[in-house]
Amino acid sequence: MQSRTPHHLDDQKFAAKELRALCRSGSYAGPTSGLADGNVQANLMIVPREYAFDFLLFCQRNPKPCPLVEVLEAGMFEARSAAGSDIRTDLGAYRIYEHGQLQREVSDICEIWNTCGPDGLVSFLLGCSFSFEAALVEAGVPLRHIQQKKNVAMYRSSIPCVPAGRFDGNMVVSMRPVKCSDIAKTVEVSARFPHVHGAPVHIGNPVTIGIQDLASPDYGDAVDIADDELPVFWACGVTPQYVAELSKLPFCISHAPGKMFVTDLWTADVYD
Amino acid sequence: MQSRTPHHLDDQKFAAKELRALCRSGSYAGPTSGLADGNVQANLMIVPREYAFDFLLFCQRNPKPCPLVEVLEAGMFEARSAAGSDIRTDLGAYRIYEHGQLQREVSDICEIWNTCGPDGLVSFLLGCSFSFEAALVEAGVPLRHIQQKKNVAMYRSSIPCVPAGRFDGNMVVSMRPVKCSDIAKTVEVSARFPHVHGAPVHIGNPVTIGIQDLASPDYGDAVDIADDELPVFWACGVTPQYVAELSKLPFCISHAPGKMFVTDLWTADVYD
Repeated sequence: MQSRTPHHLDDQKFAAKELRALCRSGSYAGPTSGLADGNVQANLMIVPREYAFDFLLFCQRNPKPCPLVEVLEAGMFEARSAAGSDIRTDLGAYRIYEHGQLQREVSDICEIWNTCGPDGLVSFLLGCSFSFEAALVEAGVPLRHIQQKKNVAMYRSSIPCVPAGRFDGNMVVSMRPVKCSDIAKTVEVSARFPHVHGAPVHIGNPVTIGIQDLASPDYGDAVDIADDELPVFWACGVTPQYVAELSKLPFCISHAPGKMFVTDLWTADVYD
Repeated sequence: MQSRTPHHLDDQKFAAKELRALCRSGSYAGPTSGLADGNVQANLMIVPREYAFDFLLFCQRNPKPCPLVEVLEAGMFEARSAAGSDIRTDLGAYRIYEHGQLQREVSDICEIWNTCGPDGLVSFLLGCSFSFEAALVEAGVPLRHIQQKKNVAMYRSSIPCVPAGRFDGNMVVSMRPVKCSDIAKTVEVSARFPHVHGAPVHIGNPVTIGIQDLASPDYGDAVDIADDELPVFWACGVTPQYVAELSKLPFCISHAPGKMFVTDLWTADVYD
């Protein structure tokens, strides 16, 4: 094992595969934002087989918060979108939930996977906002949480998702402050990415979507909003995780926040 | 029961519900093309619960031939997209398949439904081409099969679908001859309808997608192609039915050709 870290990977074409290998070997377990630039990164949700149809249906009915990048067949752990990958080892860290409660964080899930039998678990890869954020920045819309190296602010809204089977709950939304003069452009640019949350779900009035205090996000970090800015809200990929918690699945697994599954897909191929 | 037929329904807002009621009572069992104009019509596929996840996954992986309008939970027979509907009675006719073989055509499936238990069957509604055809005609692209009151010509192509679980097979494509000068416009207009097959999958050279003889379609009726026209091919909603046959599901049900499920959704709301 060389002492290279992902930050030294300058051949972008190779970075995704190598980054997965570094996670697999335990050499890297940090956040993936900004690494393997240009590759699609995905949220991970793993549910027991008996809930897989309902969860897939939930995603199908709620494409804005749950944009599917890929769904693996029961028991499969190599993603089609990442040749040679192993979904059980190739993320920095995993979170194990039981009956809606976070139990622990682990660095791989091979043992749990085996306990569940050869086709006991179904893995879902869901689009994350890194892709459209890069496009916004490129279009000249600065994003404060990136400038301030914070996690984006996320809130449990009062916007209901369409229920499916046992999955039911409100949408989690992310918020980014945008200059009033940039809001139209922000809508246009993000609408170009229907597979990663798409256009905003709400602009300007947090109270009407059940958010009382922007300074107290439910996930991530608060950021200030300037006088010439409005809060812009997008459907957020934390929604499926939140709804899985609410529905008290006996058991499910997700990626640890910020430690995404890095696919071989190119953002430009998938989203442009 | 009044003697009204759907052709007398001039209140479009009411037509979908009434058309379903006429099918339910057995007063109408004909094709639905051109009826309830402006409402989204859908192909129907019903599979046993144990195959529902794989079939949903197949649709998710192959959105062009299998554009999902709605998926009902196991055992549900009222579509969310059609208030008060009953998927077991509201179509003109149904086809019953066993082990990939068409067994018979029936006017309702209540008895079969009951045989399969309270949550034995899962219903899938898939977009059909009526919506984008109307948009093409409106945009000034004449469609020969409509002018000649024929069924559109469909072919089993050599284009593979992405397999999912036990579902695997090639794409069925529909063909419409288009004037060379109208092809760009045709692509642009149909691309606006990603939820009903979207842009063409192939233009101009049938042999390269495994079609030897345009005069012998596998489904529907052949139409002539003029010297200044090219054959334009779209992913076709017969694909899921064909793939279900190929995969020799012990049992499945579809709508009878041309006799669609009429939803309350408005094409303009869903597709524009």
